Amino acid sequence: MQFHHHGYVSTDPRVQPAAGTGIDRPAELPDEMDVLIVGSGPAGMLLAAQLAQYPSVTTRLVERRPERLAIGQADGIQARSVETFQAFGFAERITAEAYRISEMNFWAPDAADRSRIVRTARADDDPHGISEFPHLIVNQARVLDYFAEVAATAPARISPDYGWEFVSLEVGEGEYPVTVTLVRTDGPDAGQERMVRARYVVGCDGARSRVRQAIGRTHIGDQSRHAWGVMDVLAVTDFPDIRIKCAIQSEHGSILLIPREGGHLFRMYVDLGEVPEDDNGKVRTTPLEAIIAKANDILGQYTLDVKDVAWWSVYEVGHRVTDKFDDIDPGADGTPHVFICGDACHTHSAKAGQGMNVSMQDGFNLGWKLGSVLTGRAPEALLSTYSAERREIAQNLIDFDKEWSSLMAKKPEEFDSPEELAEFYTATAEFPAGFMTQYRPSMIVGEATHQALATGFPVGKRFTSAPVVRIGDAVPAHLGHHARADGRWRIYAFADRDASALREWADWLATASASPVVRFTPAEADLDAVFDVKVVYQQDHSEVEMADIPAVFLPRVGPFGLIDYEKIYAARGDDDIFERRGIDRDGAVVVVRPDQYVAHVLPLSDRQELADFFAQHMVEPAAVPA
Amino acid sequence: MQFHHHGYVSTDPRVQPAAGTGIDRPAELPDEMDVLIVGSGPAGMLLAAQLAQYPSVTTRLVERRPERLAIGQADGIQARSVETFQAFGFAERITAEAYRISEMNFWAPDAADRSRIVRTARADDDPHGISEFPHLIVNQARVLDYFAEVAATAPARISPDYGWEFVSLEVGEGEYPVTVTLVRTDGPDAGQERMVRARYVVGCDGARSRVRQAIGRTHIGDQSRHAWGVMDVLAVTDFPDIRIKCAIQSEHGSILLIPREGGHLFRMYVDLGEVPEDDNGKVRTTPLEAIIAKANDILGQYTLDVKDVAWWSVYEVGHRVTDKFDDIDPGADGTPHVFICGDACHTHSAKAGQGMNVSMQDGFNLGWKLGSVLTGRAPEALLSTYSAERREIAQNLIDFDKEWSSLMAKKPEEFDSPEELAEFYTATAEFPAGFMTQYRPSMIVGEATHQALATGFPVGKRFTSAPVVRIGDAVPAHLGHHARADGRWRIYAFADRDASALREWADWLATASASPVVRFTPAEADLDAVFDVKVVYQQDHSEVEMADIPAVFLPRVGPFGLIDYEKIYAARGDDDIFERRGIDRDGAVVVVRPDQYVAHVLPLSDRQELADFFAQHMVEPAAVPA
Repeated sequence: MQFHHHGYVSTDPRVQPAAGTGIDRPAELPDEMDVLIVGSGPAGMLLAAQLAQYPSVTTRLVERRPERLAIGQADGIQARSVETFQAFGFAERITAEAYRISEMNFWAPDAADRSRIVRTARADDDPHGISEFPHLIVNQARVLDYFAEVAATAPARISPDYGWEFVSLEVGEGEYPVTVTLVRTDGPDAGQERMVRARYVVGCDGARSRVRQAIGRTHIGDQSRHAWGVMDVLAVTDFPDIRIKCAIQSEHGSILLIPREGGHLFRMYVDLGEVPEDDNGKVRTTPLEAIIAKANDILGQYTLDVKDVAWWSVYEVGHRVTDKFDDIDPGADGTPHVFICGDACHTHSAKAGQGMNVSMQDGFNLGWKLGSVLTGRAPEALLSTYSAERREIAQNLIDFDKEWSSLMAKKPEEFDSPEELAEFYTATAEFPAGFMTQYRPSMIVGEATHQALATGFPVGKRFTSAPVVRIGDAVPAHLGHHARADGRWRIYAFADRDASALREWADWLATASASPVVRFTPAEADLDAVFDVKVVYQQDHSEVEMADIPAVFLPRVGPFGLIDYEKIYAARGDDDIFERRGIDRDGAVVVVRPDQYVAHVLPLSDRQELADFFAQHMVEPAAVPA
Repeated sequence: MQFHHHGYVSTDPRVQPAAGTGIDRPAELPDEMDVLIVGSGPAGMLLAAQLAQYPSVTTRLVERRPERLAIGQADGIQARSVETFQAFGFAERITAEAYRISEMNFWAPDAADRSRIVRTARADDDPHGISEFPHLIVNQARVLDYFAEVAATAPARISPDYGWEFVSLEVGEGEYPVTVTLVRTDGPDAGQERMVRARYVVGCDGARSRVRQAIGRTHIGDQSRHAWGVMDVLAVTDFPDIRIKCAIQSEHGSILLIPREGGHLFRMYVDLGEVPEDDNGKVRTTPLEAIIAKANDILGQYTLDVKDVAWWSVYEVGHRVTDKFDDIDPGADGTPHVFICGDACHTHSAKAGQGMNVSMQDGFNLGWKLGSVLTGRAPEALLSTYSAERREIAQNLIDFDKEWSSLMAKKPEEFDSPEELAEFYTATAEFPAGFMTQYRPSMIVGEATHQALATGFPVGKRFTSAPVVRIGDAVPAHLGHHARADGRWRIYAFADRDASALREWADWLATASASPVVRFTPAEADLDAVFDVKVVYQQDHSEVEMADIPAVFLPRVGPFGLIDYEKIYAARGDDDIFERRGIDRDGAVVVVRPDQYVAHVLPLSDRQELADFFAQHMVEPAAVPA
């Protein structure tokens, strides 16, 4: 964590100084704003936390509820989300209070006595060591609390405007083209309508999104005929794996057991079976007692004595995805002004633990793009990449979830072997961990022409961190963990053997008129304000002389022009990042987007391609008037 | 982290429910209290955080300052202190914002040109892998903030009473034997005196402690004739190791360089040389500019351009230790009612980074003892062990610091070799890391008769955690990290090969009338309210059947009688705790005090010795009236 560079900070360094719109931010919703977020779920709150890093942007978030969410339904936190939390600064805190999934166990009928169940397999939850971050379970309400804290303590000081419901919107012309009608849901003015105007509106308003309706997008898909009861309970049981995630198959149906944070609570998804065509929602009136009784049947020789129920529900699995995630019709010209994120775009079963995670990545994808356009760093065309990138991910999610939830609903005798479910779980682990996403080439993702220079950083996939040593203080570090969700692009230069090509590249980056750092960094800003440029040497940290390191990696920052020593790294002797990530010993340049996706891999020698890549989606800063 | 066992918790689980004196705790200082702490430094604030775990105890903390400390002078945090923070729940947060010492470098005059300096050695800061916790540098003010948060969110909801200065005290008779005179330092009533009465008073009021004076204790020692300038600065320099802890020896004197949190700030202790006998404090008027100039001289060919000074001072090293740390005169009868902690007991140079750490351990040693006596779990005689245990540690500290600070003040030519300083640093690493403390046998430390059963847990030293797997959820865990600073004793049972001796021991512990758990746990309390009993099996976690685990390790807790699954562990296949800590394969019992010191090592078969040990310092609970 870096601070003090503007002088001594005595209090919590996580609280950044208020700036711009964050100074004296009005408590009341203004008439005009840059961004209006509708809905304070995971996508909306992440977006608020991200936009709070842009103090020149006025962002407001309206929420129908009068206050903080007390208990949410989502709880699965994939490793990719913990990685995202790390970038927002709260991974270690939420991990400390969460349940961690270490393995998943599988139970099936005992062949000798099918009224009993036996453990048939134990599967490591991360068999491929895919991430240094854990797979967690923690209530959505806590995730929102942490994002709320980040938004409230970042420079723009954003906090939600509770008690406002979205009614409708119109997209017109002018500086604030979107006119939005809201209605007060709370307090003495409840029921009163209000019109506000925004440059951009983001609907994070859930599966029944009114923003989606307002822009004429359609949510396409179907509802299965299979019902599930779900309950979060405190209970006493002799089932031995009650604190382990389990898929339990039995003669009476199946249970997906998800232990929860705190050591006592757990969630059960209890199979209520096929629903007749003429059911007309009757299954949804199934009482809690019936779900508990069914769970006891499925558990065979074990008993479940429920003592307290925190939340429960009955639902039929549906799978739907929206045709496009913005207000520009497919094939039409123009750049969007209205977007939808999260459940407004994709709904599916809860059992793969994906919903909240994919929703947050929607917000992470959109946030920096809005911030870049609104601060004049990028053209509006950048905003069209949001729907293009995320629509495909949503479809993949629906496809995966359909397969997983049909497997979960299968009868024991329908499986080829008792291990089939465990094998599917292990074989597909990268998807539910959140690391299968790979964006296609676009203005912000290069072609993988030079992929061979860094095989462990596939272009279009998220940057996978690896251990290194920070040269300045000789501290072991994780290269990716220094990257914060601050809207900056990152350029990692991996040095060649004797660092001669590195030096030429660094000199070009620091001085050439075509260099993106020279072209796109405002003259009055710190050298690393737009591009966070780091270097990794092949040698042991003790063999790299500070005096030999090019100045672009040791930028001067803040009013005192202090040297930033935290951008220079060395490979570890016992775990060499060059080996681990397949980096060419002649060096390589890896470009990473603000949302942590690898945008390009290039040789140190190919400066023109680096210049061209940024020129296609960046705008030179306007000269500051004298 | 465990919660939810009284029902669903939606908000931050670190905020414990208020209880007892924490419910409607008066904002105004009452006339009578159980414990009055004087001073809100590291010892006092730890003590408040610890006593906040005892909601039946009324604890108040008076502080002369009108508000929170903005900038403190201490900054060194040894690994033992981070371990302590872990028990209080904030290790991961403070680590994230602190500077971490990974190595220490040594510089000396260049033999070829003695006006220049060269790096002569690099020393790993933890060459023996002594702790899983890091060695940190972070300002004292932040340490106090974290303890304040713990105290304010624990059941007794303690926050400091700012603006009260200690004047004097008298120890008399009765329920509240200590009468204390305070004076208001702030607000409209400034200057007004007030009398309050307390059962116990703890003076954490620094080197010039008035509490120490009031009980007639004397601070014995001397002042050296060597002066140092110290400054916390933001600066630009070409000295390459500016972000690494360094001892720099030169022709012009020496510097101890301590990089600080945040990436930019650093502290320099600059040698101002011997002070003439007739100086009469003149050295203390040395201006800042002279210290900076001296630092530039010492740095030889490098330059230091200071941009901002957060704090600076000039001092002469003194070494003093108080004769006894309570109000009972040496050799006299009776149990103490007044104690002193921290700088009130021991003062020394700052350069070994020890002061704040030893002070906190004073508070940790005393806190649970006061809590145990005030809740009726222990006899008053327990309180006499505080001075007995901590006085010896303070003397060791003074001795170590004298050696370290004279070495730091030596001229380069006085060393036998350029590596002498580095070698001393490495050879003595256990002491400054805080792990040399070993308490002698007493009513709370057993004789090491059975030490051979667990050679890695020396009796009297702090319990060294080791990796294990938690059986309930198959999660890799650190055995010691589950222990919180909650005032409970911990009993770790290491199972024998087939767990047969373990079962007999566990049955005895659960049912025998001589069992400490049976004797000293109140009937109406949870089974683990006084003793936190855990088990570690030799087998892989997958080979331990839940049904075979004795019930004493799976206690029922809270109003719903839920099962606590977090006390049962297994050795790791790749890092076996039985190997790592030298535990006998026939099993062993390791008893650990509430302040994390190993109190006893016993065989599973010797139950009488276990019963006798607790009987000498515990009191059976009074029967609850019907």
